[in-house]
Amino acid sequence: MISNDYYSQENQGPYSFFELKDFALESGDTIADLRIAYSTHGTLNEAKDNVILFPHMFSGTSKSLEAYVGEGKALDPTQYFIIFPNQIGNGVSTSPHNTEDASISMGNFPQVTIGDDVRAQHALLTEQFGITEIQLVLGWSMGAQQTYEWAVRYPDMVKRAAPIGGTAKTSDHNAIMVEGLIGALRTAVNFNDGHYDCCEDLDQALCHLAVLFASIGVSREFYAKEHWREAGFETLESFLVDFWKAWFRPMDPNALVVMLDKWQHADVSKHADGDLAAALGRIKAVVHNMPFEQDMMFTNDECRQDSNMMARCEHKPIPSTWGHFAMFGVFPQDFAHIDNQLKTLLAIPA
Amino acid sequence: MISNDYYSQENQGPYSFFELKDFALESGDTIADLRIAYSTHGTLNEAKDNVILFPHMFSGTSKSLEAYVGEGKALDPTQYFIIFPNQIGNGVSTSPHNTEDASISMGNFPQVTIGDDVRAQHALLTEQFGITEIQLVLGWSMGAQQTYEWAVRYPDMVKRAAPIGGTAKTSDHNAIMVEGLIGALRTAVNFNDGHYDCCEDLDQALCHLAVLFASIGVSREFYAKEHWREAGFETLESFLVDFWKAWFRPMDPNALVVMLDKWQHADVSKHADGDLAAALGRIKAVVHNMPFEQDMMFTNDECRQDSNMMARCEHKPIPSTWGHFAMFGVFPQDFAHIDNQLKTLLAIPA
Repeated sequence: MISNDYYSQENQGPYSFFELKDFALESGDTIADLRIAYSTHGTLNEAKDNVILFPHMFSGTSKSLEAYVGEGKALDPTQYFIIFPNQIGNGVSTSPHNTEDASISMGNFPQVTIGDDVRAQHALLTEQFGITEIQLVLGWSMGAQQTYEWAVRYPDMVKRAAPIGGTAKTSDHNAIMVEGLIGALRTAVNFNDGHYDCCEDLDQALCHLAVLFASIGVSREFYAKEHWREAGFETLESFLVDFWKAWFRPMDPNALVVMLDKWQHADVSKHADGDLAAALGRIKAVVHNMPFEQDMMFTNDECRQDSNMMARCEHKPIPSTWGHFAMFGVFPQDFAHIDNQLKTLLAIPA
Repeated sequence: MISNDYYSQENQGPYSFFELKDFALESGDTIADLRIAYSTHGTLNEAKDNVILFPHMFSGTSKSLEAYVGEGKALDPTQYFIIFPNQIGNGVSTSPHNTEDASISMGNFPQVTIGDDVRAQHALLTEQFGITEIQLVLGWSMGAQQTYEWAVRYPDMVKRAAPIGGTAKTSDHNAIMVEGLIGALRTAVNFNDGHYDCCEDLDQALCHLAVLFASIGVSREFYAKEHWREAGFETLESFLVDFWKAWFRPMDPNALVVMLDKWQHADVSKHADGDLAAALGRIKAVVHNMPFEQDMMFTNDECRQDSNMMARCEHKPIPSTWGHFAMFGVFPQDFAHIDNQLKTLLAIPA
């Protein structure tokens, strides 16, 4: 175990834990004591039919996108019961750095899949809360991957789905990009196959990862027009240091590798013997597929292919020079655009 | 010094050396004994007016693009005297791993610029061969950066120029991308600020760099349509291992860092107090600017901005799913397209 205050209740909470015994992973491995951390907003109504589920993106936690919750916003806690689950291995739920189980500690952590996360979240919703239908599952990037997994795996439960900046199956190109991101940590000084002494020893590697994200996470136009100024940074160097590097430096490298590996292998076509169209054909939800127009990680064109395979889907690209990271909502107009799209979706009878 | 047979006469030659004493770099440092390796094809005519200069790209040598030379091709050695210079620090010319001068050996190698390379090449052409005009300077990627530097620095000498897949000034976005590539080596196990014991110790880092190139060097469409099959690879894994990793693994990491640093700082606007339009306005050559349509490293749009600032320039994008790496000419149609473009340019009276 390694102490890392970044993932504490103080910094990422308040969150609660849901416990699963002997949780069988798709890899064949088992986690004896799996704890899924989660936060909720609003109140579950008596009919238990006011639920919104919002899984998080790579490098995120249940707290990352809480700004989308608020009275008058689409995710209105006076109306909905909103659940933010933490991914397995994200640093808050059971993770390489925080488990006392030596068999899964640090570099011994097993491979986890998007399917594992969604099954654990399903147990949380059904066993802890008795929920049988979800008004909206939404998520950004890896959150979109979990959204697709939910809609395909539990089609009768998901009424509406909003995958944002993500695909139902990681493309070959995207998988190679992720391999490059994983390499930033695995090949670094001191990583030692995940058995490092402390996170500080991986500071250079985390900064390297941050630079890779800076180069593919935001559009070329963003840099050409120096939109980092509008984001409140006085210099490009400050944008790199105080935005990108500041984001990744406090994190646990193993947690990032666990998530990257899930991202790389995301594929709902597994539910239909590799036939992606057939898998997406299982979806009963109304879907608003919301890619980012200038996204270099999950391109608009790729996302459109998913849209074309879903029966009740509208393709709704988000215009922003932030590209893949428009979801952070740094620009108020991006936040407003996404919030409005979600309001539109929630108003559609499902 | 480290022995690395990859850069030997047997593997990269035949090449000759041109020696420069006390070569002053733009950084203020001096290289006491600079040797520029170069190869030539064809014969310099009596008027010394049949010269083509072809500087190489990142990770290249004088041998990398020799396939473009041949009877009946644009670069016809029965007609032209074609010179391929090796960059300073590329592993063949004076470089971190091959110098006996401890003050510049390994991690002590000074910062070198595109301007340094072009001044050294100018000395080679004028002092060694008495050349005063060049029919065509062409180059791909970092070769394009050197092409721009030549056309701006020596406008009376360069009659035609073909920058291929490169810009006159590295954009902020491109510079961040390069920072990510440098990070693959600098943050790696065993790199030790360039003072490593042997290249084999950096094998993981070189493979990481290769994966980063695989993710940005070729277009998404290339992967989506599995064009690696047409390139002769049976699996995607084989394309990664036998093309990308095989390319980088024999190389010297310090040589790659020296070149990446030059790439990152390339900027002809230095010749006009930071005014790029004024710098490009100095060019007297007929220019065919040849970006790759699907290039993610130097985009067609960025290159078009350069084209718009040159008086005698035609903008001639190259269509290929290989994106930035179409210049390798793996697909015969790409090679033929580029060769034809060069013939067209050489036929224009300059």
